[in-house]
Amino acid sequence: MILITGASSGLGAALAKIYSQEMPVCISGRNPQRLKAVATSVESEIDTYACDLTDEQSVVSLFDSLAHPPSTIIHCAGSGYFGPIEQQSAVAIKDLLNNNITSAIMLLREAVKRYKHEPVTVVMVMSTAAQIAKAHESTYCAAKWAVRGFVESVRLELKGLPMKIIAVYPGGMATSFWETSGKSLNTDSFMSADEAAIMLKQALIATEHGYVSDITINRG
Amino acid sequence: MILITGASSGLGAALAKIYSQEMPVCISGRNPQRLKAVATSVESEIDTYACDLTDEQSVVSLFDSLAHPPSTIIHCAGSGYFGPIEQQSAVAIKDLLNNNITSAIMLLREAVKRYKHEPVTVVMVMSTAAQIAKAHESTYCAAKWAVRGFVESVRLELKGLPMKIIAVYPGGMATSFWETSGKSLNTDSFMSADEAAIMLKQALIATEHGYVSDITINRG
Amino acid sequence: MILITGASSGLGAALAKIYSQEMPVCISGRNPQRLKAVATSVESEIDTYACDLTDEQSVVSLFDSLAHPPSTIIHCAGSGYFGPIEQQSAVAIKDLLNNNITSAIMLLREAVKRYKHEPVTVVMVMSTAAQIAKAHESTYCAAKWAVRGFVESVRLELKGLPMKIIAVYPGGMATSFWETSGKSLNTDSFMSADEAAIMLKQALIATEHGYVSDITINRG
Amino acid sequence: MILITGASSGLGAALAKIYSQEMPVCISGRNPQRLKAVATSVESEIDTYACDLTDEQSVVSLFDSLAHPPSTIIHCAGSGYFGPIEQQSAVAIKDLLNNNITSAIMLLREAVKRYKHEPVTVVMVMSTAAQIAKAHESTYCAAKWAVRGFVESVRLELKGLPMKIIAVYPGGMATSFWETSGKSLNTDSFMSADEAAIMLKQALIATEHGYVSDITINRG
Repeated sequence: MILITGASSGLGAALAKIYSQEMPVCISGRNPQRLKAVATSVESEIDTYACDLTDEQSVVSLFDSLAHPPSTIIHCAGSGYFGPIEQQSAVAIKDLLNNNITSAIMLLREAVKRYKHEPVTVVMVMSTAAQIAKAHESTYCAAKWAVRGFVESVRLELKGLPMKIIAVYPGGMATSFWETSGKSLNTDSFMSADEAAIMLKQALIATEHGYVSDITINRG
Repeated sequence: MILITGASSGLGAALAKIYSQEMPVCISGRNPQRLKAVATSVESEIDTYACDLTDEQSVVSLFDSLAHPPSTIIHCAGSGYFGPIEQQSAVAIKDLLNNNITSAIMLLREAVKRYKHEPVTVVMVMSTAAQIAKAHESTYCAAKWAVRGFVESVRLELKGLPMKIIAVYPGGMATSFWETSGKSLNTDSFMSADEAAIMLKQALIATEHGYVSDITINRG
Repeated sequence: MILITGASSGLGAALAKIYSQEMPVCISGRNPQRLKAVATSVESEIDTYACDLTDEQSVVSLFDSLAHPPSTIIHCAGSGYFGPIEQQSAVAIKDLLNNNITSAIMLLREAVKRYKHEPVTVVMVMSTAAQIAKAHESTYCAAKWAVRGFVESVRLELKGLPMKIIAVYPGGMATSFWETSGKSLNTDSFMSADEAAIMLKQALIATEHGYVSDITINRG
Repeated sequence: MILITGASSGLGAALAKIYSQEMPVCISGRNPQRLKAVATSVESEIDTYACDLTDEQSVVSLFDSLAHPPSTIIHCAGSGYFGPIEQQSAVAIKDLLNNNITSAIMLLREAVKRYKHEPVTVVMVMSTAAQIAKAHESTYCAAKWAVRGFVESVRLELKGLPMKIIAVYPGGMATSFWETSGKSLNTDSFMSADEAAIMLKQALIATEHGYVSDITINRG
């Protein structure tokens, strides 16, 4: 069974669609209606679990609701917020940090607690904004760098254990929505979430003694 | 005038002490008693301003209270929290993220808003934990990587403007307190906050056309 | 057609084997005998081209010998050398730098010269030693960091052009040979070159508007 | 005594000038005439040693010629070469790699061999090109990233030993010469080598238990 967070839209929803053709899938997101819409749009049956990942008890309940340990967890939950720093609002910044950093920490912490001695793969989807600095994305970069530093550190704690963490950095997909905001850009050349999902699924196919531990997916 | 945050102890307090011998200093921190104690321990007069940097309005009031733009702002505020991720508490993690990330963003955002067209130098004190991943410091690394990603991004927005950001990464000083927690280590060889303050002050002396933009200070 | 350098053994040879089942393959390496051995070990016909990539004229001749532009070039050529820095010999260090840095630069420079306006994908195989520092691998890390800095810089020059560069970082495969040197380690758990080749080939399958630009493949 | 390489011009010469006011200085460079010119331009007496650092035997002779272990070695030797990769010549690329990578490795290797058990500080001067990728500086970035990867790795080997390595990254100084090449730019705003030398010397003043291990010096 595979658990996908942030699955009510974007990459998470696209992954739910393609994985559900092959194996049981459980999806989570904050909005139950949107989760149901994703679930009904696919042919196979999908479990949905509405859940606020920034809340410890919600995360515990999510994992409690799983019939058995997932073989793979793909953490896609997150949100974006952009603009020159002096124009960003305090409230929106705090939401951004919570949606991206707190949720990733709570999710991975609970997974480590429960499954660190099992061969569970946790795929942490970040952004190319976790790899470089970008003007007008200062708080978004802060959030994504945080998750990367967290993931790299937890990896060190998991050394020698069967649990694995895979780091995924998509660019030119999640980012496309703000580059075009307020502009009449032709987005025909942008990578769709479906395309990213297909490439990610391909790349995640491990062999007996190896696996792709870090992947950057770009438009182009 | 120089503004120093997180000045009720550690590097912030040590910097207040040595800078106050040369120029007017304003210090801020959350605890008014401890701030006063620092102020009375130095010979010159120091302004103190108790303030929660994670709160937007507090930060605005802090800057409003300054008689004129500071030539330099040294942001030392922050806190530490460590341990294997599965043993860290949700509450302590959220405090850690707030104390380090939210405060740094609120402080620098307000400084940019007010002074980006002036030759103000903002010194952001982080940690070597902002540069690498460390086992048992996963959320602390998350917090420090976040600040680094934020600082590097805002730098790009300030390109061509007179405001400058200096990034400082101390190691083996702030870190000493947790390496020894619960152990009877001989800490004689550790770098003191006073030593770090002396080296930082030296390194911050700019020339007409140049400055030290990034400094890592280590024990050794 | 696909061109694979460093194909007389290891990952290059493994890639030649699996790609030759699907498309025309041209392989290069320094040793003609070993190249021929690889070519005869596969069922399909493979072109071989013995060539010293550190020599400009050799690289020019290699590309001249191709009937038409390759759709993909996979640069696997390279060598390893390890030990505490004070025990490394000057001659071996210079060979190491040449085999890894000079060859990568000469190869990519010629590819850019000829094909930068064509949809050619150049896959640069490095090592996880390009991503972090490692004790007793100081000159090897030097070589691999060099290639990474080179690749990242050339990418900036190719912005907006159809040529793409893909960066590949294998760990726990190429590295296995020195970890076991002189020791009777059980290498059963190591990732084989065949496994790495399978995962790399999977990950290289692009979609219409996207591609995996960076991949780290690890043992585990 | 302090040993400065690459001291016939630029930062090396500037450092020789200011350090010679306080302590014995030995300078090296490839050109004996230019070294002598630097030596005669300062008031104190300076030892000069013409030497090709890419040659193992030359480096051995340089260290043999020192009356006693230097307290500090500042390695400034290096050269620049720039342009779009497809316009760079093979010969110039090989010189660049040698002048920057081979020399740094030979110098530091010999220093480690002789002094790793002594409190010798080796200052490795690189460039901000060691920290990021830059278009039209691909081979220069390759060279500088190599030195950085080398330095970071040797540091790991020196853990617990009294020898220390300090990494210095100047930007907007060494770089100025090529930005203006062939152009009539006003370079009044550029940081001079003298300014960088002053700041570097200040930053290198260590305390009893601490030191500035990494410094980036920028124009601005």
